Amino acid sequence: MSTTANAYAAHSADAPLAPFSLTRRDVQPGDVAIDILFCGVCHSDLHTARSEWGGTLYPCVPGHEIVGRVTAVGASVSKFAIGDVVGVGCMVDSCGHCPSCNDGEEQYCETTGFVGTYNGPDTVLGGYTFGGYSDHIVVDQGFVLSVSHDEADLAAVAPLLCAGITTYSPLRHWKVGPGQKVGIVGLGGLGHMGVKIAAAMGAEVYVFSTSPNKRDDAIRLGAKELIVSKDADAMAAHANSFDFILDTVAASHDLDALTSLLKRDGTLTLVGVPEHPHPSPTVGNLIFKRRAIAGSLIGGIAETQEMLDFCRDHKLTADIEMIAINEIDTAYERMVRSDVKYRFVIDMASLKTV
Amino acid sequence: MSTTANAYAAHSADAPLAPFSLTRRDVQPGDVAIDILFCGVCHSDLHTARSEWGGTLYPCVPGHEIVGRVTAVGASVSKFAIGDVVGVGCMVDSCGHCPSCNDGEEQYCETTGFVGTYNGPDTVLGGYTFGGYSDHIVVDQGFVLSVSHDEADLAAVAPLLCAGITTYSPLRHWKVGPGQKVGIVGLGGLGHMGVKIAAAMGAEVYVFSTSPNKRDDAIRLGAKELIVSKDADAMAAHANSFDFILDTVAASHDLDALTSLLKRDGTLTLVGVPEHPHPSPTVGNLIFKRRAIAGSLIGGIAETQEMLDFCRDHKLTADIEMIAINEIDTAYERMVRSDVKYRFVIDMASLKTV
Repeated sequence: MSTTANAYAAHSADAPLAPFSLTRRDVQPGDVAIDILFCGVCHSDLHTARSEWGGTLYPCVPGHEIVGRVTAVGASVSKFAIGDVVGVGCMVDSCGHCPSCNDGEEQYCETTGFVGTYNGPDTVLGGYTFGGYSDHIVVDQGFVLSVSHDEADLAAVAPLLCAGITTYSPLRHWKVGPGQKVGIVGLGGLGHMGVKIAAAMGAEVYVFSTSPNKRDDAIRLGAKELIVSKDADAMAAHANSFDFILDTVAASHDLDALTSLLKRDGTLTLVGVPEHPHPSPTVGNLIFKRRAIAGSLIGGIAETQEMLDFCRDHKLTADIEMIAINEIDTAYERMVRSDVKYRFVIDMASLKTV
Repeated sequence: MSTTANAYAAHSADAPLAPFSLTRRDVQPGDVAIDILFCGVCHSDLHTARSEWGGTLYPCVPGHEIVGRVTAVGASVSKFAIGDVVGVGCMVDSCGHCPSCNDGEEQYCETTGFVGTYNGPDTVLGGYTFGGYSDHIVVDQGFVLSVSHDEADLAAVAPLLCAGITTYSPLRHWKVGPGQKVGIVGLGGLGHMGVKIAAAMGAEVYVFSTSPNKRDDAIRLGAKELIVSKDADAMAAHANSFDFILDTVAASHDLDALTSLLKRDGTLTLVGVPEHPHPSPTVGNLIFKRRAIAGSLIGGIAETQEMLDFCRDHKLTADIEMIAINEIDTAYERMVRSDVKYRFVIDMASLKTV
């Protein structure tokens, strides 16, 4: 008994998003059906809706920062029950048997690649997946997360499902903790979560930003200081002193200015793919301090659960601005201008009134 | 009682090397005086002699792959005795108290930088240091290595002091061992040692080379196969399969073709500084497999001793071509054409006859 979901979709790269109806699959034995309460708005939503990365299938329903309430579970589901608050992030499936899936790193699935929550191949219904800008979704229990934050915080929990895990995973993988000096490059949706999480992990956190205006906010979020990345003297004062730098900026920029700030054996980890390549990083900066430049992609499901629990324990959520679904195009325009502190979240109840 | 050493020096960037006399310091309490038996010829010698990196001080006596015999020791030297066979590599001093020196990673000395065996600041005599193209040298015991290979092999041990440790250190740091698939890019002085050492560590080793002609040699040195790096199909057949790739090629080249071959969490480590930047590496290649591009510089003194002992235990030396000191300019010309298998070593007895 498949169901019809109300949603908002992009129908082409240059049209505003508009109401759309789609079919959700029957609840399979391993599935969880979820009424969506809130959905965060990620830059990937915008890039995909506008086909800026190419390959977008239309109509496209974005959204992969989903928090909702369970309305039905399949016969073999034991971890979730009707009424539970749950989350869904960037993935809704993976092959389940490759080395990365076996290691709980489904985001690096080596056979099919992970199945995106939207615009990915739908292996049950055929066609492709539709995301969280909709009133409900049906997801395999292996890709559903438990949310145990206070109910009042649920809207602000939604961005943890992508912005949270994308920053938590590298901070954890590169073993950030007390006694370390950690940099977060860029104070946007990802960066502001990176600051909160790295500080909660016990590190001394510095924000790199082109804008000195963000200083007060950086400190409020948990940073010790903001370093203006265009100020060469300010940068030089921190040479060779960082254990780890997480770079959330996707726009092309100079990496040497950042690798120069790493200690011996420090790593600069990039989580954004630039549209145009960064200037080629200076190899000498790597060799003379055994530094590394690495990349990292969201996180595995087990690690996403760990992140949600960590954020609950440390009372961390995203700083959000709530919108109605029919405000999504305005929100996209403001995101392009970096005019959001720090994440838009759609109140999905608004779908009923538009 | 300082001594006069016979040597060969570059007197300018474009003159052939020529006989030169220099002053070695008195043996200080912590010093070891060494009669030089053999000195390997590293590409750095050539770059420095010709001031291709800039900053060369003339007259310049290159040479930092030194094997010799102890002729005198200072009063506080207990590790070495007259008659011992010893080695000296790229460093003859460092600050001794910074975090890297304390960690036994003197090559990354954070205050003064390590003191190069040649063209570095001479903190005892003033002026700058003179290297191994000479009949004797006086070195602080902390930068002298014990050589316990068979005496018949000593000429072929000399290149271990730079080419050996430059490849051993990253292979050890990134934990290469049995069950791993490891790539060595470039089959020159460094690369041929990388193949031998990685194979002795138990890895399955592949050589990447632009030249299919090197296949037999690669296999003789311990590789399982040579992959022609310009053959896109051959490269694609190894996608996502390498645990670690050590890149010994300094010339500017495409790193994406190599990062594509790494497994999730694999590292491409560069040990050569290119004259012109490599094409900017694709960030997506890093993010979608959590891969890293890193650099590595020679190795610390304790690790250099470990490397020498490892090579002794595994009966590893360099493949060399012995020359007399007055053949050094011809050797440099051949090195520029990559016409050496795989390292020139100067028989320093030849200094007495020129």
